[in-house]
Amino acid sequence: MNGGGVVMRRVLAAWVSCALLVGSASARAETDPLPSWNEGAAKRAIVAFVRTTTDEKSPKFVPFAERIAAFDQDGTTWVSHPIYTQVAYCLEQVPGVVEKNPELRDVEPFKTVLTGNGEAIAKLPMKELEKVLAATLSGMTVDEFRADVEKWISTAKHSRWKRPYTDLVYQPMLELMRYLRANGYRTYIVTGGGQDFVRVYSERVYGIPPEQVVGTMGATTFGYAKDGTPILTKEPKVLLMDDKAGKPEGIHLMIGRRPHAAFGNSSGDQQMLEYTGAGDGARLMMLVLHDDAEREYA
Amino acid sequence: MNGGGVVMRRVLAAWVSCALLVGSASARAETDPLPSWNEGAAKRAIVAFVRTTTDEKSPKFVPFAERIAAFDQDGTTWVSHPIYTQVAYCLEQVPGVVEKNPELRDVEPFKTVLTGNGEAIAKLPMKELEKVLAATLSGMTVDEFRADVEKWISTAKHSRWKRPYTDLVYQPMLELMRYLRANGYRTYIVTGGGQDFVRVYSERVYGIPPEQVVGTMGATTFGYAKDGTPILTKEPKVLLMDDKAGKPEGIHLMIGRRPHAAFGNSSGDQQMLEYTGAGDGARLMMLVLHDDAEREYA
Repeated sequence: MNGGGVVMRRVLAAWVSCALLVGSASARAETDPLPSWNEGAAKRAIVAFVRTTTDEKSPKFVPFAERIAAFDQDGTTWVSHPIYTQVAYCLEQVPGVVEKNPELRDVEPFKTVLTGNGEAIAKLPMKELEKVLAATLSGMTVDEFRADVEKWISTAKHSRWKRPYTDLVYQPMLELMRYLRANGYRTYIVTGGGQDFVRVYSERVYGIPPEQVVGTMGATTFGYAKDGTPILTKEPKVLLMDDKAGKPEGIHLMIGRRPHAAFGNSSGDQQMLEYTGAGDGARLMMLVLHDDAEREYA
Repeated sequence: MNGGGVVMRRVLAAWVSCALLVGSASARAETDPLPSWNEGAAKRAIVAFVRTTTDEKSPKFVPFAERIAAFDQDGTTWVSHPIYTQVAYCLEQVPGVVEKNPELRDVEPFKTVLTGNGEAIAKLPMKELEKVLAATLSGMTVDEFRADVEKWISTAKHSRWKRPYTDLVYQPMLELMRYLRANGYRTYIVTGGGQDFVRVYSERVYGIPPEQVVGTMGATTFGYAKDGTPILTKEPKVLLMDDKAGKPEGIHLMIGRRPHAAFGNSSGDQQMLEYTGAGDGARLMMLVLHDDAEREYA
């Protein structure tokens, strides 16, 4: 967790070829850039990758402009259990939505969500849950949405850890992002989560600006408020679902370059890691597993 | 034109409020950053905008991260007559497409395009032209498309000027981009043209990297080549038409920030300029008109 002494006990280097790609340069740094990482193959692979791609004399040198690193978010850079943070946001918006639209009070899935019964909510079919997402993620201007998320995320607390979600970030991944940036890499979040949602806190939490957040993309519509002010309204229409095959598609759309490094934690990241690995030169792909049983989820 | 002494005879400051927003600071630079611009209101407004937004003591100071400037392309940064460059590309690809798909030879609109008769081609209805765009802008991988455009744009010549399209760039706009970048602004192309098309040459021609090109966005599909290589294939499906209302929508999608400066030349840029102007603090919006009759289009 952020600021804590969380240890990433194991980091699985998913592609064995990784070590071959990056060579076997020694990882003895004078000051350790990754102090919360265990010494091991994963840490050595990262350090070797950074050295070989930033050394102008290396045949694997990567020009500054091409230094792109992609990070999955949920489960990779912060907690994703028991539910995705954005889903928690949407569920907690339901009372406000029902207040504005009282006709929804006795309509499913809103009725179930209003009971606050976690078990019943967890059993809602995806189709029903999507109605909650649509009702809470669209219909407002992008500025209103930003303000709503900002307010929520600064006060809401995780059900188990009783701490703000933005504290529940994995320290080793923050170190890794900083280390890569210090070596000229631009770090991107590439998440199945909503692009507009993650952008609200990405700068503060990860040091990643909004334009470097690639997420599930909702349509907006340009129009004018009653007073004539130009506004962008969020629509209940997904332009690109940034998960699985959607991750390389989203990367191409938003960046137009193939990353040299990619970090994920689940099958939703497989295609992003494959796409990263299919590039020439040095590429680093990792699946991380946060499993410190005492402070993390096994 | 690029490298030439083209004079931008008139630059229309479309929003009169512009001068009020940026104040009336003097524009006497020690070395003129905009030598090919006529002395006048437009040049003074640009210099005053840059000074007031980059001076930490100014109430209109804009932090580094927020310094975003958006440029329309066709007609603003390079020629767009008699036809858009990308349309020229598509038309010139038709013989190659027909060679691979001989059944198209006697089918409209391909039949007309193959005649090379400019007048007849110009009369093709938009619906027919869209078939040409779909046939020449999709079906290949993103890497194949990049290679095709790269090859074409390095050899193709404009029908009137007999010079490569990438030479037909307006020198004053290149100066303006450089001047803004030298003052910490990130310059974006925001174009109705295809995002993947413009990205091929944007770095070389404008000094704008692919991730800073916002254009009409086509869908891609992630999959695998016969040998198992992960590939992205371009689909004949538009995710976002980056023109008119689509420009602020595209800016929000790709950048997630409102620009502080925007430059266009036509009604297709109106919404982008309105959206830019609706932000608080200093904003600069300009419509440019390149009308040097001898070397430009009146």
